[in-house]
Amino acid sequence: MQVISENRAFGGKQFVAKHLSDACNCEMTFAVYLPPQAEDGPVPVLYYLSGLTCTHENAMTKASAQAWAAEYGIAVVFPDTSPRGEGVANDEAYDLGQGAGFYVNATEAPWAAHFKMWDYIAEEFPALIDAEFPINGTRAGITGHSMGGHGALTLALTYPDQFKSLSALAPIANPTQSDWGKKQLAAYLGPDQGQWAAHDASLLMATQGYPSDILIDQGGADQFLELLRPASLAHAMTERAQPHVMRMHEGYDHSYFFVASVIEDHIRWHAERL
Amino acid sequence: MQVISENRAFGGKQFVAKHLSDACNCEMTFAVYLPPQAEDGPVPVLYYLSGLTCTHENAMTKASAQAWAAEYGIAVVFPDTSPRGEGVANDEAYDLGQGAGFYVNATEAPWAAHFKMWDYIAEEFPALIDAEFPINGTRAGITGHSMGGHGALTLALTYPDQFKSLSALAPIANPTQSDWGKKQLAAYLGPDQGQWAAHDASLLMATQGYPSDILIDQGGADQFLELLRPASLAHAMTERAQPHVMRMHEGYDHSYFFVASVIEDHIRWHAERL
Repeated sequence: MQVISENRAFGGKQFVAKHLSDACNCEMTFAVYLPPQAEDGPVPVLYYLSGLTCTHENAMTKASAQAWAAEYGIAVVFPDTSPRGEGVANDEAYDLGQGAGFYVNATEAPWAAHFKMWDYIAEEFPALIDAEFPINGTRAGITGHSMGGHGALTLALTYPDQFKSLSALAPIANPTQSDWGKKQLAAYLGPDQGQWAAHDASLLMATQGYPSDILIDQGGADQFLELLRPASLAHAMTERAQPHVMRMHEGYDHSYFFVASVIEDHIRWHAERL
Repeated sequence: MQVISENRAFGGKQFVAKHLSDACNCEMTFAVYLPPQAEDGPVPVLYYLSGLTCTHENAMTKASAQAWAAEYGIAVVFPDTSPRGEGVANDEAYDLGQGAGFYVNATEAPWAAHFKMWDYIAEEFPALIDAEFPINGTRAGITGHSMGGHGALTLALTYPDQFKSLSALAPIANPTQSDWGKKQLAAYLGPDQGQWAAHDASLLMATQGYPSDILIDQGGADQFLELLRPASLAHAMTERAQPHVMRMHEGYDHSYFFVASVIEDHIRWHAERL
């Protein structure tokens, strides 16, 4: 791991660093915020997964997470959203390829050589974070925005022992039925839709629960509601009596102004459960 | 109106009274809690509609509402759940007839002579409360539990100018598809299911919104989940981006222990919006 930058923030430290990823077979950049409490010993950690077109940087600079992470004594970690660089496949569209990894392990050409974001977030990246930072990896939660909310939900529902608390902001909630999903799952996983179901939060929720409660925030004026399909997830959670809080916020859109407006509740949600 | 009892409670006053109802064509008993702030002038009011088998008394004694009503300066009013008395039709079942008015205007024999709970709650009863108590009727909200949650939702969705804030606890959310609904709507309104839709919160939500946000609380261990059908309402609210908060609480059942556990949030919800 190589530290690229280090800034004092809210009494703690904001790091940007990079490392060579085995899973993605390329260099990956990421950001870590350590709250002041980390100087006294390992702190719990919240993984924040970002959305389409984002890097490690968007949420680090625009989500306003650090102030609350410092107050509640929890680290927040911002991985990138895909492999990147020369030699890594890409697409002209904003919603496929670099910046749009969709948190799956691609099996199809030309993506399979690098696009292993599922394994990266589930295994390699947390192991790196645990080894390099004063973090208690047994106290890890996960959240995310949009495509990152999809990643957070599908990863935590699949690995609840690893991600012990869960929330999401305006997640892509039902990608097998959305143009934010069908295109990418077909490209990365191939045409067999049986392979897609493991990456659809609403379908996962309908077939299995999550052992803790879940917080979902959604903007009521989100311009992408028809792509996000939050009603499918709301139905699935309520139908199985999954403990949860679902909030539809009047007038908020899909931007980071929405994320920043509710991020304190998410930081506190995870800090209270970890 | 005749006052039956008056008790000091949390610095305010708990009344039980009765009056002769034109709508229901019988004597109706009800309870009103006035917070201490009512001594200084009219206060906003929250109507609390109760569930199957309840009278005005259940929520008055078991919901723990008065402490919070006093803190937030809002009156809470508890009407009965049906007409009662000799000469009023009844049924041996607990879920039809007296104690089970379902907040509709019955059109079918033998119910039509007295069972006009829709008109009673929407018109006659608030007019009485406004006239007899130091209450500002232009600042009225509505909530309820189970069958009362059904009444609160359907009345507020139909008369949003009258009921300006709305919440519900474990409401019967989709009665046209439930055995808590089909039997009663058929008995009171007749077999034409076209008449039923106006009394189904999920169907109303799908066709029209509510101009303020809505709070719904549901126990995850509620023994009547299959009859309440909260997933239908969750889906309808989310699908139309209705501003709302839906909370599924792990381990809580359908009892007043659940109601009492979350009532503060409902009192505060209404007080902040009225």
